[in-house]
Parts: sequence; C-alpha cells; structure tokens
Amino acid sequence: MSQTNHQARLAARPKGLPKLEDWQLMEEAVPTPGAEQVLVRNHFVSIDPTMRGWMNDAPGYLPPVQIGDVMRALTVGEVVASNNAAFEIGDHVAGMGGVQDYSVSDGTDIFKVDTRLSPLENYLNTLGIAGLTAYSGLMFIGEPKAGDTVLVSGAAGSVGAHVGQIAKIKGCRVIGVAGGPDKCAYLKDVGFDEAIDYKSEALYPRVAETCPNGVNVFFDNVGGEILDVALANMAMHGRIVICGAISRYNAEAPLPGPSNYLALIPKRARMEGFLYFDYRNRWLEMMQAMAPWIADGSLTCKNDIVSGGVAAFPSTLPKLFTGENFGKLMIKLV
Amino acid sequence: MSQTNHQARLAARPKGLPKLEDWQLMEEAVPTPGAEQVLVRNHFVSIDPTMRGWMNDAPGYLPPVQIGDVMRALTVGEVVASNNAAFEIGDHVAGMGGVQDYSVSDGTDIFKVDTRLSPLENYLNTLGIAGLTAYSGLMFIGEPKAGDTVLVSGAAGSVGAHVGQIAKIKGCRVIGVAGGPDKCAYLKDVGFDEAIDYKSEALYPRVAETCPNGVNVFFDNVGGEILDVALANMAMHGRIVICGAISRYNAEAPLPGPSNYLALIPKRARMEGFLYFDYRNRWLEMMQAMAPWIADGSLTCKNDIVSGGVAAFPSTLPKLFTGENFGKLMIKLV
Repeated sequence: MSQTNHQARLAARPKGLPKLEDWQLMEEAVPTPGAEQVLVRNHFVSIDPTMRGWMNDAPGYLPPVQIGDVMRALTVGEVVASNNAAFEIGDHVAGMGGVQDYSVSDGTDIFKVDTRLSPLENYLNTLGIAGLTAYSGLMFIGEPKAGDTVLVSGAAGSVGAHVGQIAKIKGCRVIGVAGGPDKCAYLKDVGFDEAIDYKSEALYPRVAETCPNGVNVFFDNVGGEILDVALANMAMHGRIVICGAISRYNAEAPLPGPSNYLALIPKRARMEGFLYFDYRNRWLEMMQAMAPWIADGSLTCKNDIVSGGVAAFPSTLPKLFTGENFGKLMIKLV
Repeated sequence: MSQTNHQARLAARPKGLPKLEDWQLMEEAVPTPGAEQVLVRNHFVSIDPTMRGWMNDAPGYLPPVQIGDVMRALTVGEVVASNNAAFEIGDHVAGMGGVQDYSVSDGTDIFKVDTRLSPLENYLNTLGIAGLTAYSGLMFIGEPKAGDTVLVSGAAGSVGAHVGQIAKIKGCRVIGVAGGPDKCAYLKDVGFDEAIDYKSEALYPRVAETCPNGVNVFFDNVGGEILDVALANMAMHGRIVICGAISRYNAEAPLPGPSNYLALIPKRARMEGFLYFDYRNRWLEMMQAMAPWIADGSLTCKNDIVSGGVAAFPSTLPKLFTGENFGKLMIKLV
C-alpha cells in the first residue's frame, strides 16, 4: 500500500476551460483516522461536468471548492482502517472522497456497495451518478409514457446513454444527439432509434424530421442551440428536463438563454431542473429497477477509465468539455 | 340600432409595433343570421397582448389572422336576433366576436353571462380573460402556499393585478413590478406588500432586497431582464409561471432568452407555460371562487375603457405595449 496520499488541490479559479496550472499536485502522509472515523483507499475517481461549477466562486447547489482545497470528487474505494463499528476493513464504499488516494470519513458520507453484484467502478456509472441521474431525471421529471418521443442531447455521454436506454426500455421512441460518427454509431448499437451528429448535421431540420409528432420529453445535457431546437419542436404538454448544459460551463461571459422559451406557452410545456441526490431515499429502488436491465443486457454502460493516478487529473478533466472522452470518465488510482 | 357593421380588418402584417396602416376600417351591412345562428351586437371589445401574436404569420396556439380578415378579439354583447333555441334576444353573451359591431355565431363559441351578478364589461376582466388567466396560472401552475413569496411582473396590468390580489387572499407575500409611480401606488392600494418601479429602480438589488427568502412563485407577463432577475432569486423548488412576455412581442428579430435559466438546477425549479382556456371546464369553479372576493372588495379590477368604437382600435392596440394603458383595456362599442 502506498504510504503517500497524492492529491489534486485547486490552485486557481479557472477562466474558461480548466488549465494544468489551475491545479497543484501534492503529496501528503496518509492520514490516520480518528475516533469513529474510517480511512478509505480510493480506487476510482469520477470525473463529472458538474465539477466545473464547483470551481467557480459562485453560489451553487454545493459551496465552491476553495483555493488550496483538495478537489471535490465522487469516489469508490475500500476501507483500509476503521474506528467505526459500521465499517470493516475490506468494505467497498462509495462517497465523495475527492481527487486523492486516501480519504477519511466519519461514516455519514459514505455507503457500502456490493462488488459481487457489479464491479466497483460501476458504482460511479450505472449504479452511481450516471445511471441515477439518468433514471431520476427521466422518470421523475420527464415522466415518459410508452409511445412518447424522447430526445436526448449529449446522448453518448454517460448520463445521456443511460437516459436513451431507459427510455427505450419504457417503450419510447428515442432520438439522440452526439458528436461524430463513432458516437452516433454507438447510440444505434445501444438501441437509440435515431442518432443526429451535431458536428455534421443541421439540428433544426434533423430534429423536425426525426420527431414528426413533436418531442414529449427532451433531456438536455448540453444547452445552446439544441435547447432552442427542442423548444421549437416540443409536443403539447412536453417536458424539458434540465440536467446540465455542458456547452455553457466554460463560458467566460454570460451566454444568452433559450430564445425560443416562449414556446412553453402554446405547447403548455415545462422546463425543470433537478439533482439526483435529492432522490437519495429512492436510490435503492432505482438500483433495483436497473439491476435486471443490466443483467439482461438492455442497459449497458461504457467506461472511459484513465490510468496514471491523481497526476492524470489536470489533463483529464478538460476532455469532458471538448468531447474527447467517450463513456463514463474516471481515473483509476489502484 | 346602427345598421352598419364597422370592422377592423388586418391589412398588413406589422413589423414591430402595429401601425395605423396595418388596419383597414370597413363598413359592411349587418349580417343576417342563418339557421341555428344568432346575431350578437358587440358592446365591448377586449384588447389583449396576445393579439399581437395572432397577427404574425407563424404557428401559435391559434392560427394566424389572415390578411383581409376581421381582427380576432374577445367580446361581450347582446343577442339581437336568434334562430337558435338556446339563445333569446336580450341574452348577454361573451365570445370571440372580433373587432366589429356585430358578429354571427352558431352558438357553440359564445356563452351566456349574467349581468345581474356583474356588469357586462367585467366578463372581459375579472370574470373573463384577465381574472381567469390570473387564477388558472397562479393556482394551477404556480401552486402558491400560504407564506410563499410571489413576484409578479406587469403587476399593474389586468392579469398581474389579479394575480397579486389572489396571492394576497391566499396568504402570500406579494411583490409587484410595474412602470411609474402611479402604477406602483396602485399596487400598494390593492394590497401588494411591495412595489418595484422598473423605470426608476434597479431590478436585481430590489428583488433581492424585497424577497430575502427567495421567490417561491414568479408570475411573468413581461420577460427580458425581470425573468433573469427572478431566476437568480428563486427559492428552492420555485415555480415560474410563463404567462406572457410583453417585452418581446414586437421584437423585429429573435431576442435572447433568459441567460440564468440554469438556476433551475440548483433551485430544483420549473418554468411552465399555460393558456387559460385549457381550464374551460373549471371556469365556473374559478368564477365562483372569485365572486365572494369581488363582493367583499378584496379582488378589485380597474377598467381602461376607450370610446370611439371600432375606429379607435388601430390607435388603441399599441398602448398595451408602450405601457400607456392602465387597467383592463377594452373598446366600448355601444
């Protein structure tokens, strides 16, 4: 076991796309857990678009990461020391351990996961932030009915791919928007009815053509043009699930919002934001719903696992925003 | 009784604010009702912001008014000839008679109103489009609870003033935004807790200051800056009722949408459009709810009645968009 705790700490608030200089890589001694605490060896660090928001000195759903702090991140790992009766050495846990090899917890912010059911890294993917975000946003906010047309932006991303597959399982027609032929081919492989390549196809005509009866549910991970196109093509009483807007996170000045938002009136439509951790008390129910779909192959997940440990973090995070990564992005520490 | 039917017909699709030249004033013979039809002498024509949308050759919740057509408008009037067993001469009715002295109906698009309960013109105000829009949007989309903070834009307008008063009756704290000291004084007169004058006060600090616990319900008639300000100040799980956007209807090019729409995520908030006539089967219930409030003076309505008949229409409509009118704008024909 490494006796050094490698960490990535925020050195500067980035302007635009995070740069290598925005991080300070540190080595500290592995901490010793105190009373009631456990020490976790983190195995995988989740790299998520929402991290960009945490780096800004602006109000959000969580406080900003402060300059000098270890970067906040979801993690999965293994308990290596425990002074807490609820955890034993060898337990696998998920939590928010940050971008570091080791983290200490009082047990209230980590929970045990069962690696006999699914590999540890999948608790950052289908059975973690990606699948739970997709499930809660689609089912609880989007409320799709069989036969509905569901449009998904960022469809080849870890959340989008889950949204599309779950919508198919629920009997919907699913159209995904992604960048490039490889990602579009992947969407067809996992069962999307149509894939639109935003890099080579015009969004307005393609959405109109592939959604002739209008869009009942639009699940938006991207924002910008696709949100306006979706608004112009909503079906009556349509639901727009605002999950994120990856096209906006690195903007250095405020960007205009959706010009077509008044389409909400004639379409009697709504646009709603959500966060998956609000549904914490339903995570078990959601995991149980998804487990048989994983087992029968109808819900697959693609991992994009980067090696190199904590040191790989500064160069990995920007890939989320440039479209370079493909699948659930995470860094392997062990 | 006049034997001439004065009409305002659409002569040209306006660019920007409608101009006098966009209308053709016509005189026709009073029509003769056919089998099962009734002839209505219109007494008041309702002048509403939504008319601007009907003049565009663009999809909307109703088909565009065609060049040469009598302008579509809500009306109240009196049956003066009837071949329909359901209506007698002397019945007062509300409907969509258009900007003309007389209209013919087959009886399916008009309904009787009781002028013993309320004066005829009030069926275009509290007991018509203004009150029913306010009630349905606030109660069914905004879903206010006692103690909520309700922010209303266009608050001195006919819809906004009803929204604020109904919200007060429901136990909410109500902040209204209007233009000029007279309109703001009126808001305080009818019970708003705070009035913000957008012509002389900065919206961001004033909304933040008057809504220290955030905005639970924002009822938007205006769009533009106030929508962004409200988004930045929403309370958790807030509801934005998109009723209209009078700041946008005369734009000659697409305007940017709300830059702050991503606040919907951390606030788990929603933004939803509606049209009051979707709630037709609840109009009676809504009128019955409002009747005692009208009777006890807690729900008042201000009429802005223009004389001059149909000929006054071309110069009256623009007043809606310039902020010149004050109260429910209508033209008196009789």
